[in-house]
Amino acid sequence: MEKIQGGVTAAQGFSATSCAAEIKAKGLADMAMLYSVSPCIVAGTFTKNVVKAAPVLWDKRLVEEKAPAQAVVINSGIANACTGTEGQKACEETAAEAGRLLSLSPEQVLLASTGVIGKQLPMDRIRSGIGIMAGHLRDSDSSGPAAGTAAACAILTTDTHAKECAVTFEAGGKLVTLGGMCKGSGMIHPNMGTMLAFLTTDLAISRELLLKALREDVEDTYNMISVDGDTSTNDTVLLLANAQAGNVCITEENEDYARFVEALRFVNTKLAKQIAGDGEGATALLEGKVVHAKTKEEARCLSKAVITSNLTKAMLFGHDANFGRVLCALGYSGVDFDPDRVDLFFESAAGRIPVFAEGTPLSFSEEEATRILSEPAVTILADLHQGDAEAAAWGCDLTYDYVTINADYRS
Amino acid sequence: MEKIQGGVTAAQGFSATSCAAEIKAKGLADMAMLYSVSPCIVAGTFTKNVVKAAPVLWDKRLVEEKAPAQAVVINSGIANACTGTEGQKACEETAAEAGRLLSLSPEQVLLASTGVIGKQLPMDRIRSGIGIMAGHLRDSDSSGPAAGTAAACAILTTDTHAKECAVTFEAGGKLVTLGGMCKGSGMIHPNMGTMLAFLTTDLAISRELLLKALREDVEDTYNMISVDGDTSTNDTVLLLANAQAGNVCITEENEDYARFVEALRFVNTKLAKQIAGDGEGATALLEGKVVHAKTKEEARCLSKAVITSNLTKAMLFGHDANFGRVLCALGYSGVDFDPDRVDLFFESAAGRIPVFAEGTPLSFSEEEATRILSEPAVTILADLHQGDAEAAAWGCDLTYDYVTINADYRS
Repeated sequence: MEKIQGGVTAAQGFSATSCAAEIKAKGLADMAMLYSVSPCIVAGTFTKNVVKAAPVLWDKRLVEEKAPAQAVVINSGIANACTGTEGQKACEETAAEAGRLLSLSPEQVLLASTGVIGKQLPMDRIRSGIGIMAGHLRDSDSSGPAAGTAAACAILTTDTHAKECAVTFEAGGKLVTLGGMCKGSGMIHPNMGTMLAFLTTDLAISRELLLKALREDVEDTYNMISVDGDTSTNDTVLLLANAQAGNVCITEENEDYARFVEALRFVNTKLAKQIAGDGEGATALLEGKVVHAKTKEEARCLSKAVITSNLTKAMLFGHDANFGRVLCALGYSGVDFDPDRVDLFFESAAGRIPVFAEGTPLSFSEEEATRILSEPAVTILADLHQGDAEAAAWGCDLTYDYVTINADYRS
Repeated sequence: MEKIQGGVTAAQGFSATSCAAEIKAKGLADMAMLYSVSPCIVAGTFTKNVVKAAPVLWDKRLVEEKAPAQAVVINSGIANACTGTEGQKACEETAAEAGRLLSLSPEQVLLASTGVIGKQLPMDRIRSGIGIMAGHLRDSDSSGPAAGTAAACAILTTDTHAKECAVTFEAGGKLVTLGGMCKGSGMIHPNMGTMLAFLTTDLAISRELLLKALREDVEDTYNMISVDGDTSTNDTVLLLANAQAGNVCITEENEDYARFVEALRFVNTKLAKQIAGDGEGATALLEGKVVHAKTKEEARCLSKAVITSNLTKAMLFGHDANFGRVLCALGYSGVDFDPDRVDLFFESAAGRIPVFAEGTPLSFSEEEATRILSEPAVTILADLHQGDAEAAAWGCDLTYDYVTINADYRS
């Protein structure tokens, strides 16, 4: 496997366009469209929130019905969530309009929206945006990396930068590419999905294995990040495979499958960590790592408790080695463990320091701890000494800017 | 039932003292002692955090062993949590010293601590504090309301004001008093207990009924508040009954018991709401109210999801009627419900406004909504139209000051 430049347009046969449709403030890119030269099989995971946005319901139905897809239309600025039948009608119209211009049936068009909840989409602007983007698709540079990056920018809301990743790997003697983009900064606490992530690959693989690989992967990637504990109404991960690489189609869990799973894990981990590190108002990426837990599920639960604790997050913002908050978070995670056997460390590019061992606080240099906690990426490591399972979760610090951004997001 | 002035010293036979023992910054009161002229039966509920502070383990054992108590020693500044065997020894020594000076066995002395986790108690200062307070107890004014308020002040950490409440009610023709004090501002998300609350009553009641009344009551009072989602290592509610009112001892769930339950609910609701409204950095009390849910448990879960959502809390700070965040929080609460039947209202002393009905956003005056959300106490009401159960939960807004307080709490 090799990391390469690029994102959703890296795999063969995929192109992307974007435009400013005036859903957000004038002049800001707020719509994107992905297109494949041939029909794709699709795997998707979606929010478990009972309140599901209209485009989530649209995609969920199509993915469950195993409809092959050839395009995705995405808008930022308005989430089309809590919008009732009018919101559902907006989805139908959007897919119909894109289908008409791309010579596809509406059922071949997937949708995603992100932004303010409880507002209706301005359908006239959506329609003219689709018209502009369908025109762009005829340009040859819509399959280049710049078009992918422009699309990755158009789907952002409070994010501060575009999030992309791509790799190549070999399957059946052919070079296969997997690339993706995602967005997410606030209302990030995915459950079986995430904010929005779009992955494209030219791999030939069965639908069943594509879905299995994605489902298993999100458990350790997107489902292990949290910015604020709020599970969105719009969380969606879509993985499109168009078979353009020409490999013999993967239909069993062989070595090719293993290489694909490895590539998927790499890309999704990179993308998920980009979301966590770009959390609303964040100054640092926080990794919570738990080793030697009894089970994988317990390790996940413990590491997630650490990175979701507001007090631990605020401690990181203050570069203050207040490790008691970490123990407190482990303790209320719902997992039963023996606190007297826990070792705790703070680590980053600036070093590593043990702060707690065998039920007792250790004496350590506050200066060194502050130096370690002042890096842009910090790991809190808990060694439970109670088993063989481990897990990592990613979040960010809690800052004044998080409050600023969310005290008045709509205006 | 009648609300009266006072707190832990309101009931007959209870007195309180406090002092500055230099556990916190010099001159600040940081120790308190409660004393009853006769042995009390005790009901207690404690944190469900796996990591339990040493005084929690001390009290839990005594309450389970049904030991009659006559004194409580409390310190603020250091939580005596994550302190290993040295922390347990500190409890034994504290109880022994108080017992020696008050002519009690150590097992008649209950303990509570609150403050920084992972630091050892300065036992020399604790001992001299106990000496000073035991001396004060001989003063007649230690049973007056001022002594109760001074004790309520001495147990505070980041709280901005003392929290007390007292009522009288009748049992078997006798006037009975129930009073209490509590503290708590950060790391507030109690599970079967709360930060620290101390209740005293001169009621004569069986130990079983005292515990039953407390256990049932905390589910709808302390367990329904949250400041930051962090369940403390030290949560403790102690209810002491010394039988000084002279009523015929309550041994069955008769009318006297019902009046006691009503009084307990009143005092604990008042105290719990005082904690929520005085959450770290808070400018407003947030009530999440859910009506017409399918079950009581679901109503509790839904109302708690609303008041714990960081995004809803930040919205309240910004006085911004971003109701989509409330629906989002209800949706990820874990409760299954039909979003298309939910009505949503914002209300406060400034009025009441419907914002969402039957799956669709309503048009409303932003000015009116802002006016309603700018009051010091705001209710978000969700009518589910799906059953007969209801619940309320209490929290506060998320502010710059919450971040300031917690980015550098130890210094």
